[in-house]
Amino acid sequence: MLVAISILVFLPIALGGASSRIGFAEEKEVPVWPKPHSLLASGSGSLALAENFTLRSSPDSIATLSSAFARYREIIFLHHSIFLASRQIPESIPQLQALSVRISSPDETLQIGVDESYRLQIPDPDDATAALLTAETVYGALHGLETFSQICAFNFTTKMTEVRYIPVDIVDRPRFEYRGLLIDTSRHYEPLKIVRSVIDSMAYAKLNVLHWHIVDTQSFPLEIPSFPKLWNGAYTGAERYTLEDAKGIVEGVGYPELWPSGNCTQPLDVSNFAKTFPFKFMHLGGDEVDTTCWKKTRHIARWLAHNNFTAKQGYEYFVLRAQKIALKYGLTPVNWEETFNNFGSKLNNETIIHNWSKLYPYVFLGYSHSWNLLFRIGPGLAPLVVGAGFKCIVSDQDVWYLDHLDVPWQSFYKNEPLTNITGEHEQSLIIGGEVCMWGETVDPSDIHQTIWPRAAAAAERLWSPRSFTDQGTSQVHSRLKTFRCLLQQRGIPAAPVDELGRVSPPYPAFNGYYKKYAQAGDTLQSFLARA
Amino acid sequence: MLVAISILVFLPIALGGASSRIGFAEEKEVPVWPKPHSLLASGSGSLALAENFTLRSSPDSIATLSSAFARYREIIFLHHSIFLASRQIPESIPQLQALSVRISSPDETLQIGVDESYRLQIPDPDDATAALLTAETVYGALHGLETFSQICAFNFTTKMTEVRYIPVDIVDRPRFEYRGLLIDTSRHYEPLKIVRSVIDSMAYAKLNVLHWHIVDTQSFPLEIPSFPKLWNGAYTGAERYTLEDAKGIVEGVGYPELWPSGNCTQPLDVSNFAKTFPFKFMHLGGDEVDTTCWKKTRHIARWLAHNNFTAKQGYEYFVLRAQKIALKYGLTPVNWEETFNNFGSKLNNETIIHNWSKLYPYVFLGYSHSWNLLFRIGPGLAPLVVGAGFKCIVSDQDVWYLDHLDVPWQSFYKNEPLTNITGEHEQSLIIGGEVCMWGETVDPSDIHQTIWPRAAAAAERLWSPRSFTDQGTSQVHSRLKTFRCLLQQRGIPAAPVDELGRVSPPYPAFNGYYKKYAQAGDTLQSFLARA
Repeated sequence: MLVAISILVFLPIALGGASSRIGFAEEKEVPVWPKPHSLLASGSGSLALAENFTLRSSPDSIATLSSAFARYREIIFLHHSIFLASRQIPESIPQLQALSVRISSPDETLQIGVDESYRLQIPDPDDATAALLTAETVYGALHGLETFSQICAFNFTTKMTEVRYIPVDIVDRPRFEYRGLLIDTSRHYEPLKIVRSVIDSMAYAKLNVLHWHIVDTQSFPLEIPSFPKLWNGAYTGAERYTLEDAKGIVEGVGYPELWPSGNCTQPLDVSNFAKTFPFKFMHLGGDEVDTTCWKKTRHIARWLAHNNFTAKQGYEYFVLRAQKIALKYGLTPVNWEETFNNFGSKLNNETIIHNWSKLYPYVFLGYSHSWNLLFRIGPGLAPLVVGAGFKCIVSDQDVWYLDHLDVPWQSFYKNEPLTNITGEHEQSLIIGGEVCMWGETVDPSDIHQTIWPRAAAAAERLWSPRSFTDQGTSQVHSRLKTFRCLLQQRGIPAAPVDELGRVSPPYPAFNGYYKKYAQAGDTLQSFLARA
Repeated sequence: MLVAISILVFLPIALGGASSRIGFAEEKEVPVWPKPHSLLASGSGSLALAENFTLRSSPDSIATLSSAFARYREIIFLHHSIFLASRQIPESIPQLQALSVRISSPDETLQIGVDESYRLQIPDPDDATAALLTAETVYGALHGLETFSQICAFNFTTKMTEVRYIPVDIVDRPRFEYRGLLIDTSRHYEPLKIVRSVIDSMAYAKLNVLHWHIVDTQSFPLEIPSFPKLWNGAYTGAERYTLEDAKGIVEGVGYPELWPSGNCTQPLDVSNFAKTFPFKFMHLGGDEVDTTCWKKTRHIARWLAHNNFTAKQGYEYFVLRAQKIALKYGLTPVNWEETFNNFGSKLNNETIIHNWSKLYPYVFLGYSHSWNLLFRIGPGLAPLVVGAGFKCIVSDQDVWYLDHLDVPWQSFYKNEPLTNITGEHEQSLIIGGEVCMWGETVDPSDIHQTIWPRAAAAAERLWSPRSFTDQGTSQVHSRLKTFRCLLQQRGIPAAPVDELGRVSPPYPAFNGYYKKYAQAGDTLQSFLARA
């Protein structure tokens, strides 16, 4: 939609935090999601985390890390009751005293392309009582903390939290630099607490861009101080975000120092927008624009006639002008694919095309009995976009739109952004992908279970090496179930893995008691049919 | 189920906390849920909460209140970003400096029947700059804090949090002393973080008893130190609760001083159970017991023969013996209605009967075309229970079982526990009711949206005067929608009000933008059909 305002919030960290792993993953597999780039070593040992286990960093003055330490401490020890915290720990169990984090670069600037790599070694080669996490930037370290937390578990026998798979040596980095999730607060309002919990959950899957589709045709919840009547278009007087709220979300993910001032009420023009959302990309929309009403609206019709524009030319003018303003302020424009389809040759070279329709170009072949409409589907739009020299973000609606409830996680997982793109340069122009949680049938009651666990499948496709993800979904099934349990233990209500989007569990859990009575080859259905 | 272990946790408080009200309730109505007993006064004024607004108590050393103050502070100021917290507040807006809480009794013992009444006056008759909350016990004060938080809202124009409906004078107390919610962690495991958030949400609706149906046939997640193999029946090694976890839940709701010691690993016999769960009631189950397998199990069959018992007599022996043990430790036994139906005359007089089958006694009349089976439904079991002199908790499965997804909130609301009970003494034996969230199709992904908002409807039936609740549901509809939004803003994913249990919103919110274009008499369907 042309009027949509979207905020791309780059995520360094999350905001809140529970652990003690529920394991479906095979014992020998290190149950980290998404799959790390390289596992140089992994063993079958465990180390109990000492009672005074510390997270420490060098340099030790990095604010982003201090708050992350507090957050991950809570996550790692989630299953520790206060009673256990003060109990005597037997001295005979080998213990880990600390996780040391070493950052090479003091630069905390967060932008697309920032170095997100890390290495996690347990034990530290130089100190058997500590674990070592090294990273170029603080953002790599945050991913390393997440990985560390995922291999920690509460031991119900010793009643201590352990780090497992020792000795372990993980070298990790993302495959794509842009790994996004779109949320839509126009079709349904999402309270700030819900938005924050979505951000928390993204960090668990190492997604790094929140595309906050904050306003659209249905409602306009955002305050624009220079146009104070706009948010009268909110659903109710309270279903709104102040500019400070939007800042708070961005600030909450790490960058207070980039804000102008707490009392800033300057107009939200692009210059101010650039201050409010200090990221390089600005999503200028431009999809599914219906210009028919422009001709019916007298002053717009007059303006079109005055400029000798068709409605379509007016739309083109609007998009190109918005691009110029964004570029003037140093922002890289992102536009939905319709702009490329309609006037791609006029778009600025810097434009990043956001692709949502994989069925392009298609040729209508006629009707069939079984499919209603018969198309010959072309190679997809993304190859055309990068062939024309534009960068591209992939959000194929048939498999990466989370509001499509009939798409199972396997389809999310299998969607390869580089399909039909073979040239090395063209491949480099695909900067990543984004799963989209359009909000028509999503509100605070169901947003998490519609996003999760399916978004996690896409997250692994975007993070892990293609050589691994191309091997199929059956080998990752149990690890994804483990990740779903991790989400739930951290308070994120992820839906069952083996159902379609957002579907509730149909039966009592198929494990434990039932397991004893199941016969070889049983499915849940056959088991229940016999019982 | 006979083997079920259920924990009844009396709730003084909740554990975590978001506000700034979304208003559907008519402006003139004070949007508190459940409806307070008496509204002595309410106006149309507002007072901004001062920047240094304080919650204070006399006496000031009550630990339960201190933690509640921290919690409610967060809830009341939920929509305040950190930017707003430090801004200059214009002096011309009338401000409230404090809420003063005065408790008459220092006794913090929490048991059924504790005085839960409170009075909330804003402004304090003796101090125009403060609000006054008076209560007999700390538990009444906690309800008063909840009420206060429900009439606070973020003002999007002044960007300050206000308390509204000033001057206001609310005198409130519950109609029934037992207002419960059952959760079932046997059919699906619920992580501790989820259990805690359920407890949080109960406090918002002034429910006061968590009936934690912790183990059953499907899985045995609870640690019983004297029988350490029992929790091998958990679904997985991690889907368990240590005894300390269970204690932590109870402790989290307020009573660390009642615990024996942090390292207590004594057997969970009744004596220890009484220490772990320091409440007067002990739910001993006894429903839906299938004794056929007893006859097939050799050592049980031998024991039955030795005692000259039928299986049914063995079941009776078990229940009555468990009752005796409970009574020996000063606990009041609660048993499901089957015990009353089968050997009611032998139950101890103190027994509280938990009634779930309203269709009793029924007479089978034959088949009909439209109803399949035709019954003449009797007056219900509860009248028989109280007629026999037993106390009774009502959980009519046709309208108060939350796993019945086809039951709308209106049916929850209309269920009157005193139906067909007219005598004053018999009425006094109905101590309250409980909505039951059986866990077959409920796990962390959908527990909240299956419980809420329907449990809130029952909560008002149990709290508010019958003279009000008997007036029907249409007058409370908009206030319930407001309460649902309050739950969502506090992070509880309550489902849409106007759908059946757990159903997602079918369309974008029907408000704001759409409202402008709706015609008189439009339903959502007719509106969308035309659009």
